[in-house]
Amino acid sequence: MANISKKVSWSGRGDDRGERTPLLNGAEDGKYNRHDIVRSRPKEIPHNAKLLSLKYESLDYDNSENQLFLEEERRMSHMGFRCLETRRWVICGLIGFLTGLIACLIDIAVEKLAGYKYSAVKQNIEKFTEFGGLSISLILWAVLNSAFVMVGAIAVAFFEPIAAGSGIPQIKCYLNGVKIPRVVRLKTLAIKVFGVICSVAGGLAVGKEGPMIHSGAVVAAGVSQGRSTSLKKDFKIFEYFRRDTEKRDFVSAGAAAGVSAAFGAPVGGVLFSLEEGASFWNQMLTWRIFFASMISTFTLNFFLSIYHGKPGELSSPGLINFGRFDGDSVQYNLYEIPLFIIMGALGGVLGALFNVINYWLTIFRIRYIHRPCLQVMEAMLVAAVTATVSFAMIYFSNDCQPLGQDNTEEYSLQLFCADGEYNSMATAFFNTPERSVRSLFHNPPGSYNPLTLGVFTLAYFVLAVWTYGLTVSAGVFIPSLLIGAAWGRLFGILLSTITSSQSIWADPGKYALIGAAAQLGGIVRMTLSLTVILVEATGSVTYGFPIMLVLITAKIVGDYFIEGLYDVHIKLQSVPFLHWEAPPTSHWLTAREVMSSPVTCFNRVEKVGRIVDVLSNTSTNHNGFPVVAHTTENDEPGKICGLILRSQLIVLLKHKVFVERASSRLSHRKLQLKDFRDAYPRFPPIQSIHVSQDERECMMDLTEFMNPTPYTVPQETSLPRVFKLFRALGLRHLVVVDNENGVVGLVTRKDLARYHLGKDGLEELHLAQT
Amino acid sequence: MANISKKVSWSGRGDDRGERTPLLNGAEDGKYNRHDIVRSRPKEIPHNAKLLSLKYESLDYDNSENQLFLEEERRMSHMGFRCLETRRWVICGLIGFLTGLIACLIDIAVEKLAGYKYSAVKQNIEKFTEFGGLSISLILWAVLNSAFVMVGAIAVAFFEPIAAGSGIPQIKCYLNGVKIPRVVRLKTLAIKVFGVICSVAGGLAVGKEGPMIHSGAVVAAGVSQGRSTSLKKDFKIFEYFRRDTEKRDFVSAGAAAGVSAAFGAPVGGVLFSLEEGASFWNQMLTWRIFFASMISTFTLNFFLSIYHGKPGELSSPGLINFGRFDGDSVQYNLYEIPLFIIMGALGGVLGALFNVINYWLTIFRIRYIHRPCLQVMEAMLVAAVTATVSFAMIYFSNDCQPLGQDNTEEYSLQLFCADGEYNSMATAFFNTPERSVRSLFHNPPGSYNPLTLGVFTLAYFVLAVWTYGLTVSAGVFIPSLLIGAAWGRLFGILLSTITSSQSIWADPGKYALIGAAAQLGGIVRMTLSLTVILVEATGSVTYGFPIMLVLITAKIVGDYFIEGLYDVHIKLQSVPFLHWEAPPTSHWLTAREVMSSPVTCFNRVEKVGRIVDVLSNTSTNHNGFPVVAHTTENDEPGKICGLILRSQLIVLLKHKVFVERASSRLSHRKLQLKDFRDAYPRFPPIQSIHVSQDERECMMDLTEFMNPTPYTVPQETSLPRVFKLFRALGLRHLVVVDNENGVVGLVTRKDLARYHLGKDGLEELHLAQT
Repeated sequence: MANISKKVSWSGRGDDRGERTPLLNGAEDGKYNRHDIVRSRPKEIPHNAKLLSLKYESLDYDNSENQLFLEEERRMSHMGFRCLETRRWVICGLIGFLTGLIACLIDIAVEKLAGYKYSAVKQNIEKFTEFGGLSISLILWAVLNSAFVMVGAIAVAFFEPIAAGSGIPQIKCYLNGVKIPRVVRLKTLAIKVFGVICSVAGGLAVGKEGPMIHSGAVVAAGVSQGRSTSLKKDFKIFEYFRRDTEKRDFVSAGAAAGVSAAFGAPVGGVLFSLEEGASFWNQMLTWRIFFASMISTFTLNFFLSIYHGKPGELSSPGLINFGRFDGDSVQYNLYEIPLFIIMGALGGVLGALFNVINYWLTIFRIRYIHRPCLQVMEAMLVAAVTATVSFAMIYFSNDCQPLGQDNTEEYSLQLFCADGEYNSMATAFFNTPERSVRSLFHNPPGSYNPLTLGVFTLAYFVLAVWTYGLTVSAGVFIPSLLIGAAWGRLFGILLSTITSSQSIWADPGKYALIGAAAQLGGIVRMTLSLTVILVEATGSVTYGFPIMLVLITAKIVGDYFIEGLYDVHIKLQSVPFLHWEAPPTSHWLTAREVMSSPVTCFNRVEKVGRIVDVLSNTSTNHNGFPVVAHTTENDEPGKICGLILRSQLIVLLKHKVFVERASSRLSHRKLQLKDFRDAYPRFPPIQSIHVSQDERECMMDLTEFMNPTPYTVPQETSLPRVFKLFRALGLRHLVVVDNENGVVGLVTRKDLARYHLGKDGLEELHLAQT
Repeated sequence: MANISKKVSWSGRGDDRGERTPLLNGAEDGKYNRHDIVRSRPKEIPHNAKLLSLKYESLDYDNSENQLFLEEERRMSHMGFRCLETRRWVICGLIGFLTGLIACLIDIAVEKLAGYKYSAVKQNIEKFTEFGGLSISLILWAVLNSAFVMVGAIAVAFFEPIAAGSGIPQIKCYLNGVKIPRVVRLKTLAIKVFGVICSVAGGLAVGKEGPMIHSGAVVAAGVSQGRSTSLKKDFKIFEYFRRDTEKRDFVSAGAAAGVSAAFGAPVGGVLFSLEEGASFWNQMLTWRIFFASMISTFTLNFFLSIYHGKPGELSSPGLINFGRFDGDSVQYNLYEIPLFIIMGALGGVLGALFNVINYWLTIFRIRYIHRPCLQVMEAMLVAAVTATVSFAMIYFSNDCQPLGQDNTEEYSLQLFCADGEYNSMATAFFNTPERSVRSLFHNPPGSYNPLTLGVFTLAYFVLAVWTYGLTVSAGVFIPSLLIGAAWGRLFGILLSTITSSQSIWADPGKYALIGAAAQLGGIVRMTLSLTVILVEATGSVTYGFPIMLVLITAKIVGDYFIEGLYDVHIKLQSVPFLHWEAPPTSHWLTAREVMSSPVTCFNRVEKVGRIVDVLSNTSTNHNGFPVVAHTTENDEPGKICGLILRSQLIVLLKHKVFVERASSRLSHRKLQLKDFRDAYPRFPPIQSIHVSQDERECMMDLTEFMNPTPYTVPQETSLPRVFKLFRALGLRHLVVVDNENGVVGLVTRKDLARYHLGKDGLEELHLAQT
C-alpha cells in the first residue's frame, strides 16, 4: 500500500470560508487510539486505503420531529398534504425537463465542436497525404486536442475541483448519506457541463454520460430547494423541502433523470438510483423518480428531434444511440452461452486490471500531481498523446475497406487507401467514441480486420486507464464500452474464423455488444441497472439474458481481484461509506464497543455560555448532542430526553432565543421552522455569532427545538443490529443508553463504517483528520 | 357498504387442528371500544371493508438475537458465512429451475387439453354447419368447458380454498409481513397448478400467469426450508434458513421467478417483487432475486424449445409470447402522445369499473356463495355461459375475413363464411386468450371489423368481471390484456377511419398494445414493474415510453375511483396490510394512543405455572411478551430487558427447560437453536403440552432465550415515526417505554394498520375476530 503524505481530496481546496467542518460527537475519546494516530502523525498518514476521513459530514435522513415540526404537520390539512405531493411531482417534472435540456446542450455542443475539429484535421490530412508532411497534420490535431482539454482542465482545476471525473462516486456517496462539500452547487454544474464538452471535443478517451448523472443530481438539488447559493437568489418556493430527507429523495430522482437522458433508459435510471443509492424503497418515491426519468428522456428526444430537423419523431431517446439490433441476426443459441460466460470472465479480468492500474495511478496522482497547474498540464499531455497515438495507429495501419454505398462514416479518411476505400482504423479513432461503438456494433462483417481491432483495444485500454482520474470532467462508460466492443468484435471474428461457419457466428456485432457489456461490467460492477440500461440503449430485449449472464460473471470474477472502479475511488478518498450490511463476522461486537463515549450532553435548559463553549471547541466538533434530564447524582449518566443538532443550536444562538433567567419559562418565542429552513443547508459557523458576556449567563430552553424521540439502542445490541437500524432509517446519530435510559454513548456513521471485511477477517479502519 | 354476517375467508375452513391462532398482545384492553364491538355483535359485522381481522398473524422480519443465536453467529467463521451465501445462491437457482419447470408443465398441459377440446368442437361445428343443428355443437362445447372447470373447482373448493384466484393478493400480503395460513404449502401448489390447467382449458376468461407467481412463491418457501409438511419429509438441509427473515427473502425470489416464467420478464419479475413486496432494498438480495428470475425464464425457454422440437433455440422466453414488434411499424410520433394519454384515462375508468363491479360481486359471493358445492356450481355456470356467449357471438357475427397465405390461426373457423375465408369473431373467442391477444396485436390491418371488436370487448368484459373471484385457480392479467387489446384495436381502427390517413395510424396493433397496457394498468395499478413486464414481453423498447405514460395515467385516473383489484380483495379479507407510509395527517397521534396496553410481561426468571396460564388464555392470545427486571414497587412498570415470543416459550415448555428451584441457576441446559428451528414454522399449540402440577411450581430462566435488545420507542413518538421504524425493519412487536425504560405498551401490526386515510381524513378501522 502506498504511503501518502499529502492528499488531493475531491473538494480540492479544503473548506471555503475557513470554517472547520463539524464532525462526530465523541471522537475525542482515546478508545482504539484514534487520537494517537491523528495527533502523533498528522503529517504522514500510513495506509491511505485503510483510513476513514473525519472530514465528511453525514446527511440526516431522519427528520428531527421537534415540537415546531409536529405543530406544522398537525396544522396541515389533508389538502395541504395533497398540495405538497403535487409539488413533489412538479419538481420531479422540472428536474427531468432541465436535465434533458442540459443533455441536449451537451450533445449539440460536442457534436458541433468535434465536427469543426475533425473537418479541419481531415482537410489538413487530405491536403498533406499526397505531398507528405503529415507531421503538420499531427501537430494540428494534437494542438487542437490539447487546447480543448486545457480550457476544460483549467475550468475544473482552478474553479471547481469537485467537478472532475464522472461524478458518479460523489453522487453514490451523497445518496449513501455522506455530505460531499460543494457537490450539488450550481457552479459545479456549470463547470461540469463546460468541462465535459471540452474533454469530449478534445478527443480524450472519455464519455459524456457519467457527468450527466452528476448534472441531473445538481439540477435536482437546486430545483427542489427553490434557490441557489451560487446565484445568491432565493425564489421563496419549495421551502418545505429544505431538509436532508427531501433533498436526498430529489437528488435520487435527478441522478435517475441523468442516466435516463444519457442512455435513453428511464427504467435503467430508476434502477441505477436504487442499486447505487437508496436503501429504503418507497413506492411513491420510486414513481416520482420514474416520472423524472421519463420526462428527461422525452425532453432530450424532443429537442434533439427538432435539432435534427425531424420534429416530433421520437426515435432516438438517449445521448448515445447504439442503433437497433433488429431482424434475423438478433438471436442466440444454447451453445453460445458458454462463450458468453467466457467473455464475461474475460471482461471481469480486464476490468479488474483496469481498476488496479487506475488505483496505482490515482495514488501516484494524489502524491505528486496535486497542484492545479500540474493537473492541467497532465491533462494536456494526455490529450496530445491521445492524438499522437491515434495518428500513429491510423498512419501505420493499412487496413483499407471499401466505402459503402450509403457512406455512413461521417469522417471517413481515405489516407493512403485506394479511391473508393477508407482506412478502417480511422473509423475507430477519428470519431467521437459513441460513433465508434456504434460502428463496432453494426458495421457488416469484414469491416475491420483482426489486427486493427487488437491494436486498437490495447492502445485504447491504456489511454482510457490513464485518462480516468484526470482533472477533467469526463465519464468512463463509453471508453469501457468501446474497449469491450473492440475485443468483443475481435472475439467474434476469431470465432467465425476458427469454426469457418458463416451461419450464426457470422455476426461479430453481437459479440461486440456482449464484449462491451462484459468490459463495462468488469469495471463498474453494476448488474441489474446496467442490464436494463444496455437493453434500453440497444433497444433489444432478446439479448437481455446474455447481457445479464455476462454482467454477473464479470462481477463475480472482477470482485475476486478488486472492487469496482467507483468503490476504489470512494475508498481512496477515505469516505465513511456504509455498505448494505454489516460485515457478517461482526456479531461479537456490540454497541458498547462501537460507540463513541463519553458524550457531550446538554440539559433541557442550558446555559448559553456552555453551549457556545462546546460548539466552539474545534478539537471535538460535535454535531449532535443528546439532551438529558437533570440528575441529582453527578456520576450517573443523565436520562435521555431528546437530541439536538449543532445546526439547530446555531440558529437558536443567532436568533438569541434566550430565557432571561433560568427559572422563568417566559421566552419571547417567535422562532419558526422557517428560520431553520432559511439557514439550511449552510448554517453559519459558530465563530460568526457574537454572544456577549451578559448573554452567556442567560439560559436557553431546548425543549421545543430538540427531537424528543431520537432512536436509541441498549449497550448490548450487536453491531449488525445497530447497523441495520442505522442504515435502514438513514440516521446520523444513534444514542446508546443503559438500562435506566441514561446516555452512555453515541453511534455515528464513522463508528459503523470503520469495520470492514478484509482478507483475514474483520478489520478496523483508522480515523484520520485528512 | 355491505352488511355481511358470514365471511368466506381466504383460508376457507378456518384453522386446522382446532387451534386458535395466537394473536396480538394487549388486545384485551377496552380502549377505543374494540372489545365492545367484538363482544356485543359477534354474529353481525357491520362494515366489512372498515374492519381489520384479528385472524392473521404477523411474520417477524426482525431476528430474535438471543444468546443462542449470537453464540452460533460468533462461532461461525468467515468461511461459514461464505458457505451460507453460496447456499442462498444455490437455493435461488433451484427455485428458478423448479418454477420454470412448473411453468413448462402448465403450458404444455394447457396447450394439449385446449387443443383436444378445440379440435373436437371444431370438427363438430364443421359437421353441423351445413346440416343445421349447431345447438348440439354448443352443448358439446358448454359441457366440455363445464367439465374441465368442474374438476378444477372441486379441487380448489373442497381441498384447498386458498388456491383460488390468482394468488397475487395473498403473496402481496405475505411479502408485506402477514402470515396467510396454508398459503405456501406444497398441497396448495399442487391444487393451484392442477386448478389453473383446468380453468384455462375450460375456456374461462382467465390467464395462467397470476398462479405462476403464487407457484413460484410456494416453491421458494418449500425449497428454502429443505422440508415439506404436506409430504411429512425433512431433508435436514438448509436448516439455517428456518426463520421468517430468510424465508421471506426466498419467497420474494420465488414470486419474481414466477413473474419471470410467466412473462419472460426477469427484470420485470425483480421489480414486481420490489414494487409489491419488499420494503428494505438490499443489493445482494436483489441480485439473488434476479438470478432466480433468470434461471426460471431460461429453464422454461429451454424445455419449451425441446418440446417444440427446436432444442437450444431460446427465442420464446415466457409463457405468453406477444410476438415481436419489429420493423418500421415500431414508432410513434409526438402528436400521438395525447391519444395515448386519453387511452390511459379510458383504461383507468374501465379498470375502476371492473374493480367496482367485482367488489360488489365479491361481497355478494361472501354473503351467499360460501358453501363449496355452491362455489363449484357457480364456476360451472360461468363456464357454460362463457361457452354460450362465445358461441352466440360467433354464430351471429358475419365478419368474414380471407384466410391468409400462412394461415396463422390454428383453429380458424369457416362457419358460414365463404371458402377461403374465416370468421374473425371466432379468432377472438375460439382460442386460448393468449393467442387472441397475439392476433389482436399482430394481425394486419383489416383483420377485424369494428363491430366485432366492440361486441367482443363488451362481452369479454362482463365475462372477465364475473370470472375473477370464482373458486377456481386463475389469473386476471391475460383477460385484462385481452379486453384492452380489443378496445385498443377498435380505437386504432376508428382513428384511421376518422383521419382516413393510411400512413401512421394504419397500424391498429400498436393501439391494441397501448389499450392492453391501459386496461391492465387500470385494473391492477402497477406502474414500474408492469412497464418492464410489458416491454420485456413484447420485446419492444420503443413503446416503453408510451406504455409508462399510459400506465401512470391509468393509475392516477383509476385511483380517483377505487383501489387496485388486489388491494380491493385484500381489504375485503380485512387483512392488516401495512402501506408504504403512515397516513400523512396522522402526526397528531403518538405511540401512547396507538399502542396496546396494559402488556402482559414476564420476569427474567418466571414461574412455569404463570407462563402456561398466560399462554393458555384464549381470550388474549398474545404472541410476544416483554421480559422485565423485577421491580420492588408493584405499581411502577417493570424495566424492559428483553422480548420473548410465544413460539420460543412453547419450545421451552416442550423441552421442560425448568430451573428446579427459583434460587438455583443450574439448569441442565442442552437446548440448541436447532430445537427452535425444527419446530418452525408450525409450533405446537399450548394445549398439546402437558405440564404437571409439580412442574408448574418450577421456574424458567428466560435470559438466554429472549431477545435482549428489542427495539423500543418512547411514548411521545409520533405515529409516522413509529410506522417508519416498524415498516422499515419489518417488526412484529415494538415495545413502548416510559422515561425510565419501563414497559408501558406494545405496538403490533394491527395497531398501525388500523389507521387509514378515508374521504374525510383519518379513519380508524375496527378490529374484529372474523
